[in-house]
Amino acid sequence: MAKKEKGAKAELKAEVKELRKELKALRSGPKTGPQVSPLAPASFPRLPVIKGVEFAAAEAGVRYRNRTDVMLVRLAPGTAIAGTFTRSATRAASVLDCQTKLAQRGLEEAGAAIIVNSGNANAFTGSAGQQAVDAISAEVARVLGVPAGRVFSSSTGVIGEPLPHERITAILGELAENLSEEGIEMAARAIMTTDTFPKGATAEIVIDGEPVRISGIAKGSGMIAPDMATMLVYIFTDAKIAAPMLQKLVSRLTDRTFNCITVDSDTSTSDAMIVAATGQSGAPAITSLRSREGRAFERALQDVMMDLAHQVVRDGEGATKFVEVAVTGAADDADARRVAMAIANSPLVKTAIAGEDPNWGRIVMAVGKSGAVADRDRLSIRFGDLVMAENGWRSPNYSEEAAAAYMKGPELTITVDMGLGQGQSKVWTCDLTHRYIDINADYRS
Amino acid sequence: MAKKEKGAKAELKAEVKELRKELKALRSGPKTGPQVSPLAPASFPRLPVIKGVEFAAAEAGVRYRNRTDVMLVRLAPGTAIAGTFTRSATRAASVLDCQTKLAQRGLEEAGAAIIVNSGNANAFTGSAGQQAVDAISAEVARVLGVPAGRVFSSSTGVIGEPLPHERITAILGELAENLSEEGIEMAARAIMTTDTFPKGATAEIVIDGEPVRISGIAKGSGMIAPDMATMLVYIFTDAKIAAPMLQKLVSRLTDRTFNCITVDSDTSTSDAMIVAATGQSGAPAITSLRSREGRAFERALQDVMMDLAHQVVRDGEGATKFVEVAVTGAADDADARRVAMAIANSPLVKTAIAGEDPNWGRIVMAVGKSGAVADRDRLSIRFGDLVMAENGWRSPNYSEEAAAAYMKGPELTITVDMGLGQGQSKVWTCDLTHRYIDINADYRS
Repeated sequence: MAKKEKGAKAELKAEVKELRKELKALRSGPKTGPQVSPLAPASFPRLPVIKGVEFAAAEAGVRYRNRTDVMLVRLAPGTAIAGTFTRSATRAASVLDCQTKLAQRGLEEAGAAIIVNSGNANAFTGSAGQQAVDAISAEVARVLGVPAGRVFSSSTGVIGEPLPHERITAILGELAENLSEEGIEMAARAIMTTDTFPKGATAEIVIDGEPVRISGIAKGSGMIAPDMATMLVYIFTDAKIAAPMLQKLVSRLTDRTFNCITVDSDTSTSDAMIVAATGQSGAPAITSLRSREGRAFERALQDVMMDLAHQVVRDGEGATKFVEVAVTGAADDADARRVAMAIANSPLVKTAIAGEDPNWGRIVMAVGKSGAVADRDRLSIRFGDLVMAENGWRSPNYSEEAAAAYMKGPELTITVDMGLGQGQSKVWTCDLTHRYIDINADYRS
Repeated sequence: MAKKEKGAKAELKAEVKELRKELKALRSGPKTGPQVSPLAPASFPRLPVIKGVEFAAAEAGVRYRNRTDVMLVRLAPGTAIAGTFTRSATRAASVLDCQTKLAQRGLEEAGAAIIVNSGNANAFTGSAGQQAVDAISAEVARVLGVPAGRVFSSSTGVIGEPLPHERITAILGELAENLSEEGIEMAARAIMTTDTFPKGATAEIVIDGEPVRISGIAKGSGMIAPDMATMLVYIFTDAKIAAPMLQKLVSRLTDRTFNCITVDSDTSTSDAMIVAATGQSGAPAITSLRSREGRAFERALQDVMMDLAHQVVRDGEGATKFVEVAVTGAADDADARRVAMAIANSPLVKTAIAGEDPNWGRIVMAVGKSGAVADRDRLSIRFGDLVMAENGWRSPNYSEEAAAAYMKGPELTITVDMGLGQGQSKVWTCDLTHRYIDINADYRS
């Protein structure tokens, strides 16, 4: 009896322990350390070395402890640099500084550097914001022997807190000593905030028998609805291409890639993408975007940008589903984009997806509120290949069972045909889950 | 020893029970039946009888079981009717039908009726949608002896499912028999979907010594970002006022009340507000909106509409905080509204409020993304009376402790002064909590 009692008690104790663990996981998921997104790639890709680019990462203790939080990149003399940035009216000091510096031409023949910290966005920090940028730029310039006008900085993390820039300048000597052409993955890790995995992508083309390589990294997970570029993206290539041509290409591709993703409709104050072309591939220069080489380079760069953009969505805060929203047959492309974004940003659509509920009625709602020209009776809606609705009503072939089965997959495609014209748009988003709230209800604490 | 063991075991058992209860509440809050919103008024208000208006409610079993889901309102001959409706491009058949019927003049001298069901929105149901509206209108007309052109119907609930209208027509006889001037609270309960409390409001003015009364009811909890009216609102008055003048007034007041609330930025396909004036108060007619009586009536009607609009926000799905967002000093009123709505709809702002985190940096973010003219260094942000930020940075008086204490209250005011001009706007919203996701991840199942 006593033994039986003991066994029963042990069982109860085990149950209490288990239940407590479950409660803790439900209540404070992120506090137990970031789990990796279920939509993450299996591993960080092998990124080729880009001649003329070196990386280093270190722990400055800006905000996080026991992890790297600063990355430094040294770019060889002659590197052409282009960038796109958030259009936010409250953009951070570092964003304004990068935009000013990129507008200055004539310094390309000198070397350049990129310095990024995570944990603090240095946004809405008054004149102290620019002072911090200047102090960091000056110290990077001194340590690496490059002009301060060619030091591009970014900061990501909490808004409105003064940036302890002296913690960053204090470790610049150490960073400079550790610069290595192989350091890109460490750099990708150092710029993470609520990201659950580092993001990298690569592509290669051949021009005149010589390989031209592109390697890029990105960070981003929440506050994702880019209006220019998204969060922080750094792409390096050994292609030889002049800065104005590179800028034209990057701006065009941003509209097709990063500006087509949204996690939560919130646009960062710190969005920045920088593309650096060292020209050290050995291949001849790209002198026209319409040439065969120009078009091949554009496709390769677009692949890298799209890959990184998709990875940002795959690491969307709390995401369990990666969703492509494709709109066709709209009156024009702008209307198609309006509809696609209305669907991708609708909390009701996103919670239904999280609940694996094929609630296509909410797609109808989002089309209706988008402001785009729509004719209810010409709409058709598909989930994957399953026709949910057509001719203004539920499809005669509609099967709740088949639709529910489809929703269980981790990658979903929602297609809306407006039945009106030739306008089309594709955007990518994720679902809205409890974890998004867990992560964001106490991000600062 | 055995006794002590027993006590320990009982304690463990109690703990297991408690933990299981907590887990269940966390996991499936709404499945255990709707709790009442913590922001709900203490009780349904006492609404005065409006002469010429009778109500009835009944169980048709449209979708829900064991609760009323249809309300019928009979309006006396001579009642003037005005309405505002969603601008959604995918609006429901009943909305289109109401709009057509309201455009027809000349039937005012006949009686009228309002019939509303919950559980099914009859939206995106193709031609069957209008057929259902016609069948219901015809049967109401027959039973009450009013023209079918004066039968206004609304449906609220799931989108895209055929409406079993025969279940509604089957109980019309029963409804007609039970019509009562006292039935308004029962009617308010019958139109609820995810609402956790019925919503009512009233006001009274005196014209020439005679009381003029207004009584209104509303439903609404999710899919709330009205673009004209919100969800379902029915307001009754015994004022004597011609329909065109009433319509002008209602449209104007909608912009100041229902169009200034948002729960989740999603606009319903079924939004409808109908205001009916029976003219039976005994007071003289209101013949000008600029007269003293006209202005008094406008203020009273606005009070009722604002009260109902606020109640909809207080019952926002999962809401635990009622939040007023006030923007002043914008370049113009439209810009102020852009900023206020960007703040009120930001998932990052709303999750921070849910977490009681005074994360004013996210207010800066929302201002930045709004598209309004903004000067970072002229912005000031207050939470209640606490100045969080000014002159482009955290206020020197900022106290994290005081701010955190303020956030614990159930009613919050966020004020943003843009420091640019005279534009201002006020909107109302709620926080974004786990319960919103619970409610919406499996709304249809």
